[in-house]
Amino acid sequence: MNYKMVFNMLGKILLSMAALMVSCIVISVFTGGKDLVALVLSDVIIAAIGTGLLMIRPTKTSFYAKEGFVVVALSWLLMSLLGALPFLFGGIFTNYIDAVFETASGFTTTGATVCEAISKIPHGIGFWRCLIIFVGGMGVLVFVMAVLPLSKERSMHIMRAEVPGPSVGKLVAKSKDTALILYAIYFVLMIIEALLLLVGGMSPYAAFTTAMSTAGTGGFMVLDAGFIGQSTYLQIVAGVFMMLFAVNFNLYFYILLKKFGVAFKSEELRWFLGIYAAAVVILTLNTRSQFASFGEALHHSAFNAASIYSTTGFSSVNFDKWPTLSKSILLLLMLFGGCAGSTAGGIKTSRVMILFKNGWNELRRLAHPKYVHTLRIDNKPVAEPVVRSVLVYFTAIMALTFLSILIVSLNGYSLESSISSVFACIFNVGPGFGAVGPVENFAHMSYLSKIVLALDMLIGRLEVWPMLLLFAPSTWRNRAAFR
Amino acid sequence: MNYKMVFNMLGKILLSMAALMVSCIVISVFTGGKDLVALVLSDVIIAAIGTGLLMIRPTKTSFYAKEGFVVVALSWLLMSLLGALPFLFGGIFTNYIDAVFETASGFTTTGATVCEAISKIPHGIGFWRCLIIFVGGMGVLVFVMAVLPLSKERSMHIMRAEVPGPSVGKLVAKSKDTALILYAIYFVLMIIEALLLLVGGMSPYAAFTTAMSTAGTGGFMVLDAGFIGQSTYLQIVAGVFMMLFAVNFNLYFYILLKKFGVAFKSEELRWFLGIYAAAVVILTLNTRSQFASFGEALHHSAFNAASIYSTTGFSSVNFDKWPTLSKSILLLLMLFGGCAGSTAGGIKTSRVMILFKNGWNELRRLAHPKYVHTLRIDNKPVAEPVVRSVLVYFTAIMALTFLSILIVSLNGYSLESSISSVFACIFNVGPGFGAVGPVENFAHMSYLSKIVLALDMLIGRLEVWPMLLLFAPSTWRNRAAFR
Repeated sequence: MNYKMVFNMLGKILLSMAALMVSCIVISVFTGGKDLVALVLSDVIIAAIGTGLLMIRPTKTSFYAKEGFVVVALSWLLMSLLGALPFLFGGIFTNYIDAVFETASGFTTTGATVCEAISKIPHGIGFWRCLIIFVGGMGVLVFVMAVLPLSKERSMHIMRAEVPGPSVGKLVAKSKDTALILYAIYFVLMIIEALLLLVGGMSPYAAFTTAMSTAGTGGFMVLDAGFIGQSTYLQIVAGVFMMLFAVNFNLYFYILLKKFGVAFKSEELRWFLGIYAAAVVILTLNTRSQFASFGEALHHSAFNAASIYSTTGFSSVNFDKWPTLSKSILLLLMLFGGCAGSTAGGIKTSRVMILFKNGWNELRRLAHPKYVHTLRIDNKPVAEPVVRSVLVYFTAIMALTFLSILIVSLNGYSLESSISSVFACIFNVGPGFGAVGPVENFAHMSYLSKIVLALDMLIGRLEVWPMLLLFAPSTWRNRAAFR
Repeated sequence: MNYKMVFNMLGKILLSMAALMVSCIVISVFTGGKDLVALVLSDVIIAAIGTGLLMIRPTKTSFYAKEGFVVVALSWLLMSLLGALPFLFGGIFTNYIDAVFETASGFTTTGATVCEAISKIPHGIGFWRCLIIFVGGMGVLVFVMAVLPLSKERSMHIMRAEVPGPSVGKLVAKSKDTALILYAIYFVLMIIEALLLLVGGMSPYAAFTTAMSTAGTGGFMVLDAGFIGQSTYLQIVAGVFMMLFAVNFNLYFYILLKKFGVAFKSEELRWFLGIYAAAVVILTLNTRSQFASFGEALHHSAFNAASIYSTTGFSSVNFDKWPTLSKSILLLLMLFGGCAGSTAGGIKTSRVMILFKNGWNELRRLAHPKYVHTLRIDNKPVAEPVVRSVLVYFTAIMALTFLSILIVSLNGYSLESSISSVFACIFNVGPGFGAVGPVENFAHMSYLSKIVLALDMLIGRLEVWPMLLLFAPSTWRNRAAFR
């Protein structure tokens, strides 16, 4: 392990975080400054630690996939631990664990909250709470597109652009260019949404924080009731943008290059939209009796399915009161979770496709053992190691889900609450059902549960292995072997 | 597909079933004969269909793994459809779907019941109800030991005997010998349990049906309240035998050969007992307040954990009232389900081991990509295709579980009831929680749910693929290619 290099990189990340927090200090100054001291104090501490770490100069430049994973896991962990300071100093939470839960929930773009009076948070810290979702989303985009491919066979099978210009396949070579273009798309989409929300009558503060939260498919809002009771126009704007941010960002590359045909032929996009449409149809029929009209049932089904499938976590109604079938469908959408190469959580639609096609191939192999059955996506064969890594990933995340449910069960809530709280966190969605339903929050959970769920968010967000690597003794052994 | 051969084999199986039913006719004659007509009529129909199928003489002897799977799937399906006749003719159920559900539940050794007045069933049909569990268990033992290994890479990773005498590795060559010894062990254990239950004061009818039910890890009883309220002695006898029948039967081969060292060094046995012990400890501590003494809490935790982990499904108390943590643990034990090479359901402890060890290896591979990390069980390397098939199996059964939960959710019961009913059926356990808890039954479910859950039982029992093959068009295509 190249410790010096790791520390140095963590220092850079913390300094970037300190720089971002300056924007919150500015907002605090212009909105009363009640949280000014808390923000400045936090910022100074973060900047000091960052500078300290940056002082450690790497003596060697060797840097392997293992170091990459460790840096990613440690930086998300450090950001959660230090990004929690404003919440603590500002008195939003009296307990550090709550503050860390909220911050981890932000950076992982989960959106599960332990805050019971959201609208009372001063604007500086309130902005910070949504900004970290936006930043977390940026981090994830670069992580899945630039860091994951570093390790062979660990690809998420992101649709690779085969056109000139910025391409995922060439990301390592010119990752800076690609990251800049990705960020530009991400930023512009967010601004458009914020403007559309402003037009619908939201305050600038609410519009920009909501748009940042949508961009990261996070789900924090500065309004206590979220999208419940908002106008149909605002709900439609948010609904459309939730879907846009859950789509593979390579699509936007293609659109920028005016390769519309290629963009819309993406198999993952078709599955994503197909699953979404099927879910909306069933939800509409199943919840019809709870609404005044068919149109209303369709509207709320479409909004909440978009919110859950994109793993954003906004709600336009209290879907905890929906029939069991609808809740089962929402649980399944949480698991599926958007497209690869987006800010969404869950296991990703492309992995669902691979798992499904592989099962189908398995059947054909049993029926016709002498034929070769190749798994194809977008008409291109998927390499066996990629399939295998998807299978292992699925097993691992299910095992961690089961284990977490056991620990969260200690709270004594219903099985439904226990299961959905873990799904909501490990798949980075936000709200679950029952005790953690859309009009509830996670505040009443035990500290043990909050720690486990915060770790689940990090595990889910970073595709399982980077976080687990931190806990594996073998990561820290045999230093000599890896120079 | 060698259709003639398949039909011929199905004929033999149906005739064996008709022969078995004669025992029920004898019992009916000696116990009042209220169900005599129903049994004789059913037996004649089954024997007639069996004879008809047997008349189809195969013209070719070619028989591949595909045909093997199809025969297994069709025979379990036919047995469920025709074994239901006594229940229908005897008036136990007025609806054929209920009768088929009960029969499928028996043959798959699940033990989920739709019967609301069990003690009122006449003795002939009541004996049939438990006999089919015993027979189903025999079928499974031979299926997993003789049929599954026919297809390469589809092994369940059963511990292979490496001693002279009957060995799993040599099963194909002398499967008749092995089957006979397996049946002898199975039969003798069942008789010993029945005698011990008789000593404890059970009637011969109750003792033998309960012992047959335990042997198949099924869980049907002829007493309405099952083991609730039975003496501690009877509960201990049943508890011990549930565990004995959930152990890999190869262990008994070793014990017969006096190779005790080899038998008890089995890694799967150690995991099985370790997981069981851990579950009992947590359950005892978690349910302590519901019992008068620590000893009582320990006793009932040990009994119900044995029942659920062995996927038998007896209950000594209404564990639906246990705390959420205990219920989560029981759900996990359902999933794990006993050892490979036993009559238990679930995914089997050996698969849990492989999944866990593979995840661990994955981490080590990420940390040290240049080393080769071999997965070992009993200190022997497990071939990569075996690991892969376990991963695919796990994915497939989870996908089918999710899909089934969606359909069962249509009943409108709680998510807990919906999830646990599918777990209880697909993992061949029997009772779940809530609406399908240990003092409830499946009678009130919709017919759609009953059909889905009965299919789940067959899918779980036959390790997923044989049942799915029946529904895959490719199984029935390209006949010429398989001659």
